[in-house]
Amino acid sequence: EVKFVNEHLVFSAVHRAVHQALVEQIPVPEVEAATESIFPSELRGAMLTSTADIGYSLPTSPQTPAISLPVLRVLGQLDNSYIIAEGPDGLYLIDQHAAHERVLFERIEHQRSRREIEIQGLLEPMTLEVSLRQEEVLRSHYQDLAEFGFSIEPFGDRTFLIRAVPALVHDKDWAGMLRELLDSLSEGDKGDWAESVAESMACHSAVRAGQALTDEEMRELVRQLEQAATPHTCPHGRPTMIHLSSGQLKREFGRT
Amino acid sequence: EVKFVNEHLVFSAVHRAVHQALVEQIPVPEVEAATESIFPSELRGAMLTSTADIGYSLPTSPQTPAISLPVLRVLGQLDNSYIIAEGPDGLYLIDQHAAHERVLFERIEHQRSRREIEIQGLLEPMTLEVSLRQEEVLRSHYQDLAEFGFSIEPFGDRTFLIRAVPALVHDKDWAGMLRELLDSLSEGDKGDWAESVAESMACHSAVRAGQALTDEEMRELVRQLEQAATPHTCPHGRPTMIHLSSGQLKREFGRT
Ligand SMILES: [Zn+2]
Ligand SMILES: [Zn+2]
Ligand SMILES: [Zn+2]
Ligand SMILES: [Zn+2]
Repeated sequence: EVKFVNEHLVFSAVHRAVHQALVEQIPVPEVEAATESIFPSELRGAMLTSTADIGYSLPTSPQTPAISLPVLRVLGQLDNSYIIAEGPDGLYLIDQHAAHERVLFERIEHQRSRREIEIQGLLEPMTLEVSLRQEEVLRSHYQDLAEFGFSIEPFGDRTFLIRAVPALVHDKDWAGMLRELLDSLSEGDKGDWAESVAESMACHSAVRAGQALTDEEMRELVRQLEQAATPHTCPHGRPTMIHLSSGQLKREFGRT
Repeated sequence: EVKFVNEHLVFSAVHRAVHQALVEQIPVPEVEAATESIFPSELRGAMLTSTADIGYSLPTSPQTPAISLPVLRVLGQLDNSYIIAEGPDGLYLIDQHAAHERVLFERIEHQRSRREIEIQGLLEPMTLEVSLRQEEVLRSHYQDLAEFGFSIEPFGDRTFLIRAVPALVHDKDWAGMLRELLDSLSEGDKGDWAESVAESMACHSAVRAGQALTDEEMRELVRQLEQAATPHTCPHGRPTMIHLSSGQLKREFGRT
């Protein structure tokens, strides 16, 4: 067995690569040197968190201001990745993956706390093969995973039988998701175990960047985001939206 | 007669107030302290010009890069003032008044150079009363104004008879426009006389901020702007658009 000196770094790199593969279906363009930011100051705290430890630090409450969203009017989709909307004070650019992640994360947490997670039984049970390390973690977390809708039982050496999965992920690569999750949990330094499961489920179920959305789908996602408790960041702490206020636009256009 | 010590300052203030009244139909919101800019570096030169001497310095060529516009897809209108469009590399926010001014300015200059300005005869000639100072300027510029479609003849003390006006402004407040223009020309320090007339006609004929546009009208304006020789600034040197590149958006959303 290869033992990594700094497991956390390795994990982060893997996790980040997976996340990147999931959120990016379009090639990443050449990145110029970072110019000045278009972030309003209210979001900067959250933003700095997510760039410092990209995507996988949990947002702490002082950095995630609980500002509720105004009602937004969807104008259209940009790059098949962002929803462009008009608010009572300016323009909103919404990251469709991050926004959907936020909405799903809160729904999963809510349903779990009320034991209302919808479960999808598999017509035929499936086997899941895992590493030694993953097996160790899995054996101590059957019950936790069951709370989210995974029905898992041991089935021999480093093999498990899956009889049911959360309905939300039944048509996704939930096996890959479970392995990623077990790796993450074997790190041992993640904050809340259940939160990690919910995050992972949300990330794997959310609409991707590069996916075309209909006007109706965009409106529906924005309505759901408006009702979220913490609409401004995704569960990993990335911003879900950029707001350009009318005053900011006037200044930029030399209108004030 | 009151003589102003610094006539240029007075003129600027008057001209600016008039322009402001024309371009702003919506109340100007409280302006926060200027935060960081969302301007890409390519436009910054032009922008700095227009904020330094707001709106009335002519853009000098090194500050107005001759970058032609890509084909844009209109997403919608923001604040009844900006056209939001998608380009091959990101988002474009277009100031509808500044953009229309640019389009009209180039059309007027083109038509004038070919003596093709469309003229609208007035059913009944109208009289125009002016100040002493305005009269002085007007008397030496009949021919110049005629080139733009104004048929003007003396009609007594500080009074003139207008028989025809450019078709473009016949349903606008062309009398107010002429007075403003004569004030501006009495300054004597404006660069190109003809350019000032074209600028003034363009500003008074262009669609205003606060005016709702149909999708078709927005598409048409954007098509025309795409064909402009200098699409990035209005004739006064203000930016017509803000471009947020896909790379910039990725960075802001922590996606790179
Ligand atoms: Zn994700
Ligand atoms: Zn996320
Ligand atoms: Zn104007
Ligand atoms: Zn202008």
